[in-house]
Amino acid sequence: MIYLTRRERFNAAHRLYRPEWDDEKNLEVFGKCSNPNWHGHNYNLFVTVKGEVNPELGFVVNLKTLGEIIRAEVTEKLDHKNLNTEVDFLSGIIMSTENLAIRIWDQLEPHIKQLGCELHCIKVIETENNFVEFYGH
Amino acid sequence: MIYLTRRERFNAAHRLYRPEWDDEKNLEVFGKCSNPNWHGHNYNLFVTVKGEVNPELGFVVNLKTLGEIIRAEVTEKLDHKNLNTEVDFLSGIIMSTENLAIRIWDQLEPHIKQLGCELHCIKVIETENNFVEFYGH
Amino acid sequence: MIYLTRRERFNAAHRLYRPEWDDEKNLEVFGKCSNPNWHGHNYNLFVTVKGEVNPELGFVVNLKTLGEIIRAEVTEKLDHKNLNTEVDFLSGIIMSTENLAIRIWDQLEPHIKQLGCELHCIKVIETENNFVEFYGH
Amino acid sequence: MIYLTRRERFNAAHRLYRPEWDDEKNLEVFGKCSNPNWHGHNYNLFVTVKGEVNPELGFVVNLKTLGEIIRAEVTEKLDHKNLNTEVDFLSGIIMSTENLAIRIWDQLEPHIKQLGCELHCIKVIETENNFVEFYGH
Amino acid sequence: MIYLTRRERFNAAHRLYRPEWDDEKNLEVFGKCSNPNWHGHNYNLFVTVKGEVNPELGFVVNLKTLGEIIRAEVTEKLDHKNLNTEVDFLSGIIMSTENLAIRIWDQLEPHIKQLGCELHCIKVIETENNFVEFYGH
Amino acid sequence: MIYLTRRERFNAAHRLYRPEWDDEKNLEVFGKCSNPNWHGHNYNLFVTVKGEVNPELGFVVNLKTLGEIIRAEVTEKLDHKNLNTEVDFLSGIIMSTENLAIRIWDQLEPHIKQLGCELHCIKVIETENNFVEFYGH
Repeated sequence: MIYLTRRERFNAAHRLYRPEWDDEKNLEVFGKCSNPNWHGHNYNLFVTVKGEVNPELGFVVNLKTLGEIIRAEVTEKLDHKNLNTEVDFLSGIIMSTENLAIRIWDQLEPHIKQLGCELHCIKVIETENNFVEFYGH
Repeated sequence: MIYLTRRERFNAAHRLYRPEWDDEKNLEVFGKCSNPNWHGHNYNLFVTVKGEVNPELGFVVNLKTLGEIIRAEVTEKLDHKNLNTEVDFLSGIIMSTENLAIRIWDQLEPHIKQLGCELHCIKVIETENNFVEFYGH
Repeated sequence: MIYLTRRERFNAAHRLYRPEWDDEKNLEVFGKCSNPNWHGHNYNLFVTVKGEVNPELGFVVNLKTLGEIIRAEVTEKLDHKNLNTEVDFLSGIIMSTENLAIRIWDQLEPHIKQLGCELHCIKVIETENNFVEFYGH
Repeated sequence: MIYLTRRERFNAAHRLYRPEWDDEKNLEVFGKCSNPNWHGHNYNLFVTVKGEVNPELGFVVNLKTLGEIIRAEVTEKLDHKNLNTEVDFLSGIIMSTENLAIRIWDQLEPHIKQLGCELHCIKVIETENNFVEFYGH
Repeated sequence: MIYLTRRERFNAAHRLYRPEWDDEKNLEVFGKCSNPNWHGHNYNLFVTVKGEVNPELGFVVNLKTLGEIIRAEVTEKLDHKNLNTEVDFLSGIIMSTENLAIRIWDQLEPHIKQLGCELHCIKVIETENNFVEFYGH
Repeated sequence: MIYLTRRERFNAAHRLYRPEWDDEKNLEVFGKCSNPNWHGHNYNLFVTVKGEVNPELGFVVNLKTLGEIIRAEVTEKLDHKNLNTEVDFLSGIIMSTENLAIRIWDQLEPHIKQLGCELHCIKVIETENNFVEFYGH
């Protein structure tokens, strides 16, 4: 068993808030991250898959294919977007890095399985000072 | 003459567009950066000042003071904000990295002068792949 | 279960030595790291906590609170300090990165528990070429 | 139990291909990585060992010794070399990052054991966008 | 006048040598960089252009166009290639980072001019420890 | 004319203070950087030289030689040392990054000249948030 990680990036806007709370309450709980006019980040996404090395090909999975799937299923849908309002697979959640990582897992997992390996970890780096890792449900 | 650089950071939303153009025309010219629903970045700001080394104190300017001024005059006004709609000193411009760097120069320059040194360069890094440097008018 | 990591930094002096050995013996065992006149580092501390996502708030723990606790309990006590002589919770140990990580764990763990989540890992990066990770006793 | 990681680097040439396939077939499967005239990378190698902290010395293993072993057994044999043709312990494999990590594990493991600790992970970073981790057979 | 920089990357093989010298003489002068079996690097290329901010568009030059030109004229011709043998615009030189930067300048400069701005600097980073900057003939 | 930069690193202890002032006065002026028990940093030193490309050899100066000179004349004298008390060429100054850069310039410049090129810039990075550049007297 070996672990292979691919990085992809996306730049997006978001805010943290509960729609049933007013701005004051959201500000109290989520601080400046709740700004109703949005803010944004350069997100770094690290997708780690695990599997056996294919003895004929020398790799777990073709990196080019893996990158294409991550871009097609995830980062092209997030890049230069508003994460709260424009992404179908992110609807109905508080737009935290935690929930973002979990939804990216759900979005990617069936596609990784079809490659003959297993999704191991979704790591989302929001800033140089904080990131989230999700290893599955 | 010696050059001292201080980094400060801010995370913000923006879009590139001309208000007199419709979305289609903006999309044609500015691409995905014109998304009407905003996107965002982790911006890195490098402020370089130049001056003689103060012989009594060993530095051009007190770094703590320099950092406080940059935060008070610039990054606290930009952090977790919408650069297009919420920042007084950024009004009336296309919100490009170039214009952002120029307006940060204009905002900081009088304050740097009062420290007894000279503003040399404003460098704004928008992503790991592009940045702008402005050395004054 | 999801993992959230917060980085904080501190710059400090230290040396590796056993007080009951003379300088020659310390030099033989610890090399230049035993310099009696000290040396120092820019330390990067990564604190990883794990827990369930709070369904109402969307996060494991409020990042702002987590950062405040790490700074109050750890990095403000270490920053611009001599790790061998000035930090109460570091007394009585050889000032290696390993022991530093373990003592930071002991210092932080009760406070993390009170946040309703679990401390998972203390990672201390001493230089770009070496770091230590501790996952608990 | 604590984990200590040491980074060493090497710059090398390689290509991905199966010798029994012609260039066309190799190109189809491995893409531009199969270029018969070679390409290359700045590789970053992170070696993680685990063990108990030696109570007399404060560390799992002497970092200087660990670095010397990694350089003598691995990186000095790989640096400024052609990984496909010049390295004895890399013969007979497709020169993927996966196989490289596994062979580095096999090369290092007996030497780490002699230090009184255990090899935990070999991480090989090929580019800023992909890396491999191997935790043993 | 403002300065805009775009990064592009390429991974390539090369060696330093003079064809009229034998391997021994090349080794004596160029060290391990002269390995006849090649070695390689992850190169980072930073292209800086300067110009006035276009008042209608807010930028010196469209970053997307700039990136496309750099990739079409330079990095796609270098990526996963052998710099000594496979690149037309690199023929007849010792394949040092200095000569590489100069030839990239010559290759890009006419195309930058057609964009209505000026090429200012070609920076080529070969490793984390060395890079070259060329500002023109 | 082309510019070549070499990075070397050193980890050291220091403090900012004037010996004729008491600790209270030093604290008032220099803040926590004046801690009498020292603190320290991982310093990054970037040495930039300029010159013509040697047409026979393809480089401005042999990087290996340049690195050896920087290590012999500067970083080996600073690494794992107390900058205030242990380094002959740093005596009699306030140990600021500015003064450190100037003294490194003075220390290196005659040796660079003997290589047939010119010292262009000494850049000293003290933390990820501040650095100093000196281009000569």
